[in-house]
Amino acid sequence: MMVRDAYDGMKDRDSKVVEFKHPKELEAMLDLGLNKETSDDSLLKICQDIIKYSVKTGHPRFFNQLYGGLDDYSLGGSWLTEVLNTSVYTFEVSPVFTVMEKTLLQKMLDLIGFTDGDAIFTPGGSLANMYALNVARYKRFPDVKKTGVYGLPKLCVLTSEKGHYSMKKGMAFLGIGLDNLVNVKADDKGKMDVQDLENKILQVQSEGKMPYLVNATAGTTVFGVYDPLDKIADICQKYGLWMHVDGAWGGSALLSKTYRGLLKGIDRADSMTWNPHKMMGAPLQSAAFLTRHKKLLPECHSANAAYLFQQDKFYDVSYDTGDKSIQCGRKNDCLKLWMMWKAKGDVGFEKDIDNLFECSRYLAKSVKNKEGFELVVEPECTNVCFWYIPVSMRNQPRDADWWQRLGKVAPKIKEKMTKDGTMLIGYQPDGERVNFFRMIISNLEIVKADMDFVISEIDRLGKDL
Amino acid sequence: MMVRDAYDGMKDRDSKVVEFKHPKELEAMLDLGLNKETSDDSLLKICQDIIKYSVKTGHPRFFNQLYGGLDDYSLGGSWLTEVLNTSVYTFEVSPVFTVMEKTLLQKMLDLIGFTDGDAIFTPGGSLANMYALNVARYKRFPDVKKTGVYGLPKLCVLTSEKGHYSMKKGMAFLGIGLDNLVNVKADDKGKMDVQDLENKILQVQSEGKMPYLVNATAGTTVFGVYDPLDKIADICQKYGLWMHVDGAWGGSALLSKTYRGLLKGIDRADSMTWNPHKMMGAPLQSAAFLTRHKKLLPECHSANAAYLFQQDKFYDVSYDTGDKSIQCGRKNDCLKLWMMWKAKGDVGFEKDIDNLFECSRYLAKSVKNKEGFELVVEPECTNVCFWYIPVSMRNQPRDADWWQRLGKVAPKIKEKMTKDGTMLIGYQPDGERVNFFRMIISNLEIVKADMDFVISEIDRLGKDL
Repeated sequence: MMVRDAYDGMKDRDSKVVEFKHPKELEAMLDLGLNKETSDDSLLKICQDIIKYSVKTGHPRFFNQLYGGLDDYSLGGSWLTEVLNTSVYTFEVSPVFTVMEKTLLQKMLDLIGFTDGDAIFTPGGSLANMYALNVARYKRFPDVKKTGVYGLPKLCVLTSEKGHYSMKKGMAFLGIGLDNLVNVKADDKGKMDVQDLENKILQVQSEGKMPYLVNATAGTTVFGVYDPLDKIADICQKYGLWMHVDGAWGGSALLSKTYRGLLKGIDRADSMTWNPHKMMGAPLQSAAFLTRHKKLLPECHSANAAYLFQQDKFYDVSYDTGDKSIQCGRKNDCLKLWMMWKAKGDVGFEKDIDNLFECSRYLAKSVKNKEGFELVVEPECTNVCFWYIPVSMRNQPRDADWWQRLGKVAPKIKEKMTKDGTMLIGYQPDGERVNFFRMIISNLEIVKADMDFVISEIDRLGKDL
Repeated sequence: MMVRDAYDGMKDRDSKVVEFKHPKELEAMLDLGLNKETSDDSLLKICQDIIKYSVKTGHPRFFNQLYGGLDDYSLGGSWLTEVLNTSVYTFEVSPVFTVMEKTLLQKMLDLIGFTDGDAIFTPGGSLANMYALNVARYKRFPDVKKTGVYGLPKLCVLTSEKGHYSMKKGMAFLGIGLDNLVNVKADDKGKMDVQDLENKILQVQSEGKMPYLVNATAGTTVFGVYDPLDKIADICQKYGLWMHVDGAWGGSALLSKTYRGLLKGIDRADSMTWNPHKMMGAPLQSAAFLTRHKKLLPECHSANAAYLFQQDKFYDVSYDTGDKSIQCGRKNDCLKLWMMWKAKGDVGFEKDIDNLFECSRYLAKSVKNKEGFELVVEPECTNVCFWYIPVSMRNQPRDADWWQRLGKVAPKIKEKMTKDGTMLIGYQPDGERVNFFRMIISNLEIVKADMDFVISEIDRLGKDL
C-alpha cells in the first residue's frame, strides 16, 4: 500500500516532483538512525517520510537528468528481479537470465549492426566506457593484461571536448592518466570537429604518444549532439584507431526509423555504450557495452576462477558469462528491459522514442517563438537547451555584465522551482556560455502539453527576476 | 500475484530449488524473442516460465553461492527503491538516500573502527577491491591521476594465494598488470603466511619493484578463512604499505560480539570491502568500500563535471556524493539494507549472524561424525568444506588414483542434486585437493534441521556411486 502511494505520487501531474528540505533539515527530520529494533508501524511512518521527501524521478515533470519515467512492465520486471535475486555469472545459478541476456543483447547488437559481436551489461555507462578503454588497449597490446602499461608506448585517447566526463575517470582509473586524454574541439553546434581530430592525432603522434582510441558521442550530455560517426570512422580507419561510440544517452534513437540516421556510421564502430535506463525508460541500472569483436571480452577480462567457473560441470559451460565482466557477482539488469520490450514490441518502442523526439522539436519551436526564451543550440537528441531572460533584462545591450547577470538567472529559477516542487530542470554553463537550462525529455509518458507547461512555468518563476 | 507465487516458491522447503534444463533446451522452451508486441496474458505465461526455470536463490536449500535468502523488509526496501528509481549522485535528486547512505555507511565505519573515515557503495565487491587498488595508488603517488603509471616505479600488490580473483581483474584493469600481483603462501589452514608475506615484500623490493598494497582477506571465498589481520597490520606498518581487507564475505562477523574477534586488527587497516548482499542477506547489489582516510575518495575520483556538480546551487553541495565514485549514475543500494537494519536493530542482526555461524559449527561436527564425510578444513567463517566418499570407495588405500576418482564424485553428486532440484551446493578443487563441496551458510532463515538435511541428502545421492 505504501509502495502504491509512492507509485501514484509519481504519475499525478498535480503532485509535487520534490518536497525540498535542506540537508541538515532532512537529517534532523528523518529517523534514520540504526541501533534499536523498530516496530512495523514506526517503520511504515518513516517510509512515508522517505517517499515524501524523495524526488519523484518518475513524475512527468522531472526533466532534470538523462533518465526518468516509470513504466509498469519494467517495474514488474524489476520487482520480479528482486524476488529472484539472481547473480548473473554462471548458467548454473542464472539459467533463464543467461539466455535472456543473450537474446536481448543480440537484439541490441543487431540494431547497431554488430551482428556477430559480443556484449555485456555493466553497472552504468561510465563503466561501459571504461570497458571500451580496456578492451581496445588489450586488442592493441595483449601483453598489457600481464605487464601493465609499463612497457607500452604512451597511450592516448581522443574525445570531444563535449564528451562525457567518464572518460576522465576511466583514464585515471585504468592507469593511463588524464594528461593522455586529448580533447578534440567541437564546432559551434557542439559536434566533434573532424579536422581537429586528425590534427590532434598527428600532433600527439609527433610528440611520441600513441593514440589508440577515439571516443565519439551519440547524444552529448548537455547539448544532445551526435558526432559525425561516418567521418570519424574514416579517420579511425585511416590511422588504425579503435572507434568507440558513447551512445549511453542518444543510442536509443536506433529504435526509430525516423531518427536512427543520427547515428549513421555506427555499424563501422568497434564498440558502443548504450544505456536503456536512459531514453528507453528501464529503471536503473541498465547499461550495456557492445562490441563487434567476438572473443575479446572473455580474453581481456577472464581470470578463470576455479571455484566458480568449473570446467567439469555437466552442462555447456560456454554459456557462463561471468568472465566477460570485471565484476564477480552481477545484478540481473536484463529482465526489466526485456519485459518492456516484449510487451511493447519494436513498433511500440519506436512510437515512444519518436514521441520524445517530437516533443523536443515542439519545445524548441516554442522556445524560439516565445519572448524571453532563447535557444542555445538546435536540438538533435531530446535535450533542449535554452536561456530564459527576465523582463527586466530584455532589450538591453548584451555586454559582459549582462551575460554575467544572465548566468545567475537559471540558478535562481531552479531554486524557486525546487522549492515550489512543480518541476525539475537542470542548468549549467558550457565553455563561454553562461548558465542555461538543459531540459531533458526522457519520460516515455511525456506529451506536448508538458512542454507548454515548461514554458509557462519558467515564465511564471522568472519573469520578475 | 505472479510475483507472490515466485516469493512463496522461495520459502517452501519442499519446493524445488531448481528445475534444471540444459541451455539449448531452455532457449527452445522459453519465448524470449523480441520483435512483436505481446498481450498481457501471454506475457504472464512467459513470466511463469521465467519463475519456474529460475534458480530459487532465496530457498533455504540454496547453498551454492556466497549469498542467499530473501528478507521481507529488505524486499520491501528494494521494491520501493525500484519505484523511486533514484540515482545517487547529487543531493538535489537524491536527498533522502544521500543522508541515508551517510548514516548507514557511518554505522559500518564505526563497526570497523574507521570512525572518521569515508565510504561509498559500489556495484559489487570486485569493484570495491579495485577502489582499494586505485585510492592506495593515488595516496602514494597523487600524480598518477594525471600521468598514469608511466612515470611510476613498478608497483606491485601482495595477496594471499587463497584471496579472491577480483584482485587479478583489478590489476589488469588498472593497468598494473597480473605479473605484478604477488601471491603470498597460505598455511595448511588457508591463512596468509605472514613470514612469507615479509619474505615476498623483501624479494620484490630486491627486484626493484615497489609493493604498495597488501590485500588481506576476512573470509576467503572457498575455505572462509580469516587472515591474521593484526600480524599483517604489523608488516604493513613496518614497510609503509596500504592494508586492504577484503571482507566482502566474512566482514559481517563484525555484527556479532561472539565472532567479531575473527577480524581482530581490522581497525588498523587502511580500507575494507564489505558486501551486505552476502552474509547480511540484502538483495544484490549491496557492497561498500570503506576507508579510514577521509578526503581520499573525492580527491582520487573527482572529475568535477560542471553539468552535474554545479557549485552555485542553493543547498550545501558538500552533500553531493557523485565525485567519490567512478560511476556517474549510481543505483540506490542503501534502502534495502537500511530497512532490514532498522527493523531488526543491532541485536536482531547479531542473532541472525550468530545463528549462521552456529549452523556451520553444527554441520562441521556432523560431517566429522558421519561415515563417508570428511572435513577439508575446520570452518572459521560459515563455509563448510568437505568430501563425500561413496560406499564403494571407503576403507581403501588413498593413492593418487583414489584421489583422482574422488575428484569426480562431487561433480557427479552435483549433477544429481541439480536434476532432482532438492538443493544446490558448489564444489571445486583447491591446489592439490581434489573437488570437494563448499557448503555456504548465508540464508538468514537457515536452521540446524537444514544441516541434517544436507548430510542425509548428499548421502542419498552419493552412496551408490
